[in-house]
Amino acid sequence: MSKKDAPARPEARLPKGLFDVPAQEIRATEKMLGTIKGVFESYGFEPLDTPAIEYTDALGKFLPDQDRPNEGVFSFKDDDEQWLSLRYDLTAPLARYVAENYQNLPKPFRRYQSGPVWRNEKPGPGRFRQFTQFDADTVGASSVAADAELCMLAADTLEALGVPRGQYVVKVNNRRVLDGLLESIGLSGDANAGKRLAVLRAIDKLDRLGIDGVRALLGKGRKDESGDYTKGAELTPDQVEPILKMIQSEQLSGTDFAAALTGIGGDGLKEVAEIGALVEKAGYGDRIKIDLSVVRGLEYYTGPVFEAELTASIKDDKGQTIRLGSVVSGGRYDGLVERFTGEKVPATGISIGVSRLLFGLQRLGTYKESPAPGPVVVLVLDRDRIADYQKMTQTLRAAGLRAEMYLGDAGMKAQMKYADRRNAPCVVIQGGDEKAKGEVQIKDLILGAKLTSIENRDDYLKKQAEAQFAVPEAQLVEKVREVLDRHKT
Amino acid sequence: MSKKDAPARPEARLPKGLFDVPAQEIRATEKMLGTIKGVFESYGFEPLDTPAIEYTDALGKFLPDQDRPNEGVFSFKDDDEQWLSLRYDLTAPLARYVAENYQNLPKPFRRYQSGPVWRNEKPGPGRFRQFTQFDADTVGASSVAADAELCMLAADTLEALGVPRGQYVVKVNNRRVLDGLLESIGLSGDANAGKRLAVLRAIDKLDRLGIDGVRALLGKGRKDESGDYTKGAELTPDQVEPILKMIQSEQLSGTDFAAALTGIGGDGLKEVAEIGALVEKAGYGDRIKIDLSVVRGLEYYTGPVFEAELTASIKDDKGQTIRLGSVVSGGRYDGLVERFTGEKVPATGISIGVSRLLFGLQRLGTYKESPAPGPVVVLVLDRDRIADYQKMTQTLRAAGLRAEMYLGDAGMKAQMKYADRRNAPCVVIQGGDEKAKGEVQIKDLILGAKLTSIENRDDYLKKQAEAQFAVPEAQLVEKVREVLDRHKT
Repeated sequence: MSKKDAPARPEARLPKGLFDVPAQEIRATEKMLGTIKGVFESYGFEPLDTPAIEYTDALGKFLPDQDRPNEGVFSFKDDDEQWLSLRYDLTAPLARYVAENYQNLPKPFRRYQSGPVWRNEKPGPGRFRQFTQFDADTVGASSVAADAELCMLAADTLEALGVPRGQYVVKVNNRRVLDGLLESIGLSGDANAGKRLAVLRAIDKLDRLGIDGVRALLGKGRKDESGDYTKGAELTPDQVEPILKMIQSEQLSGTDFAAALTGIGGDGLKEVAEIGALVEKAGYGDRIKIDLSVVRGLEYYTGPVFEAELTASIKDDKGQTIRLGSVVSGGRYDGLVERFTGEKVPATGISIGVSRLLFGLQRLGTYKESPAPGPVVVLVLDRDRIADYQKMTQTLRAAGLRAEMYLGDAGMKAQMKYADRRNAPCVVIQGGDEKAKGEVQIKDLILGAKLTSIENRDDYLKKQAEAQFAVPEAQLVEKVREVLDRHKT
Repeated sequence: MSKKDAPARPEARLPKGLFDVPAQEIRATEKMLGTIKGVFESYGFEPLDTPAIEYTDALGKFLPDQDRPNEGVFSFKDDDEQWLSLRYDLTAPLARYVAENYQNLPKPFRRYQSGPVWRNEKPGPGRFRQFTQFDADTVGASSVAADAELCMLAADTLEALGVPRGQYVVKVNNRRVLDGLLESIGLSGDANAGKRLAVLRAIDKLDRLGIDGVRALLGKGRKDESGDYTKGAELTPDQVEPILKMIQSEQLSGTDFAAALTGIGGDGLKEVAEIGALVEKAGYGDRIKIDLSVVRGLEYYTGPVFEAELTASIKDDKGQTIRLGSVVSGGRYDGLVERFTGEKVPATGISIGVSRLLFGLQRLGTYKESPAPGPVVVLVLDRDRIADYQKMTQTLRAAGLRAEMYLGDAGMKAQMKYADRRNAPCVVIQGGDEKAKGEVQIKDLILGAKLTSIENRDDYLKKQAEAQFAVPEAQLVEKVREVLDRHKT
């Protein structure tokens, strides 16, 4: 085909906000998911998987940006013209699953689920359009003991992942504390629903914007660094101050809490105190704290809300401190199953942001994964003897060793370079000479790399002999194993 | 809210062809994926993840039903009006990844990937709209040694999963054998592209339709059981017969193959013979067979094609034999990366249909997973003492035991029923009397269930005492562990 006739070529690229995951990150993530799973299982949670695609009406729309209709979710029409969406979290599918299978579930029903979710949002630093969540939820338990358990689960999970006690905190509040406060400043009733939501969103940004940013958002509004203006909730100063006072109260342990119940009311206070007492008695009082500034941005929470964050300072590559945000979050959502069935089903859960947590752990340095060992590479010196090299490779594998035969067309030098790229601990070489003697050469690449730093001639020769040597073919496995054992840590 | 004012409720249901996966199947699948991963890693393949969503033009359309435009793939528009699709396999995203990152990859590049793919097809028995594939591909190796290696990988994987030798076969062919045959019967050239594709599709249905069905599809066409008519390739009888002869040739081992090279031509024959020789020399000749009826339905294959199937008879719940189809399939696709770059990059791979293989293994009975152990359930007899029960539960967990506290509102009888539902090996009970004595009751539910079958009174009393007994609270962990040890298999 001449160049002129060539069809237009597609460009090899990914849509914004979507990323490939390289081998090392996959291995680190899998190790982390395994640890989380172990802790969740120990609490009696059972796994469940649901598909990525659901009916749009079944998922509902509860994202923080639901005030922008048709945004936030990837949606498309099925052949029968019904709207489908990619799940935006793992909670909405759980509510659908529970409503569909309620009769057949043990009650309470503890389930965990891990998997990707999709958000059709403007991507930015730390904001992706596909990311993994790991959730645990308890359905059918109205007791705050279920909420307290999830807070302890969050704490135990972080410690199992190597975060030292004192370097994280699980913060607990109750959405109804805020509701009570809002009622006391005249913001109850349907007419004020919009204002209440605006207050919720403003408080949820405390971490990012600080107290002055929240004050502006509660009042007239706020211009951000890019010059964009966000309209405020337009509360009066008399309404703003009690809210700011509440969210600035220090983190409290359960027993301190009773003393702080002044000036603000609401049903939720009793529940918060109960959670505080439960976790204190179970020995978690130093890690699970009551914090009245926690509200969470999701509209569907109806009671206790919680979030966990790493308290140690986390820096980016340039040494700048990063605001990581919460790595676990959750709360009680007693109304989600009711959407389908009309009957209240109490439910509460937590969600771990897997990538964000992994990033935080890696930055903290508390979670080290050793790089995967590269394979032993069997070089191909004589193309007519590929079957022999293949058989050697299989012999190594059959002995439980990771091994591969070089599959390209290049010569010896490029093959050695390839073995380096593959992080191979050693290569196996058999040219005509070795073949004639019934031998193979084993070359230890890790030792070999160290040779250049040896100055003493005798040492050098000794190490060189150790780094590359011939052995009878029958001893291939044994001798390769000896080389691998040299470098075991 | 009165019933009249209630908003319309969404129905709790999933779109057709999509399914929830219950705990036991998740556990079985995870075990299987772990085994596959282990074998793939031992061959030197490295993991890669790509996102679920790609640009539609980057994925291309290579599904068997590509002659129905706009079908087969879930697609939707991005905010900038560009078309996005859910990946329909893991090969197309790999081609995009390789084209995008070619300079930075070791060559050859061996990668494995596992994850869900989506097909917007009419669902049917064994046909889902979301299913999991587990792929291994080698990019940058034009040698048939790479193809032979993948066939051996398929065989080793099936054996690692417990399929006995002799109960599976990996079948190898080369798409160019068929091309050569088609040329010899006058079907070369662009004008015959449609006919060649029709021949490919017809042969690929041999398993399902038998030789008469293929004959009909190569000729005028075929009416199926439902009365639907499929138009045929409209070959003449002179053209049909050589094709039928080829696909009816018996499975051949590498050394038998040379004798069978009569009557049909083509470039591919040499390569097939080479693969046969390689696998024979590596000791796989009894499991990897040349089979000229294998063509695979995917249009993008350019050379060797392979598929593995379980040969043992597999029956459904009613005892009817099921045609399971291939559980591993693959082939060489040297043109996929070229779509992006304009330069040929040789590539070959296999794909495991995870659900289908799991189903087959479970039916064969060669892959047994033991049911997950249920948690120890701590009953709640006195609601005011929830913190104490919680602490007992935490004590059990801290000792590495799976344990949960009952979180519902129900009484003793319902709690025991719940523990049964949860498959609990034992429950822990502490009412007022036990508390006063500083004791807990441990009830062994597995032993308890066996009591009813004991007829001898003394035996019964002895076993009953073993099945429920009081211990000092300080011995909780030790004694629970003793009960669990009773039932270890």
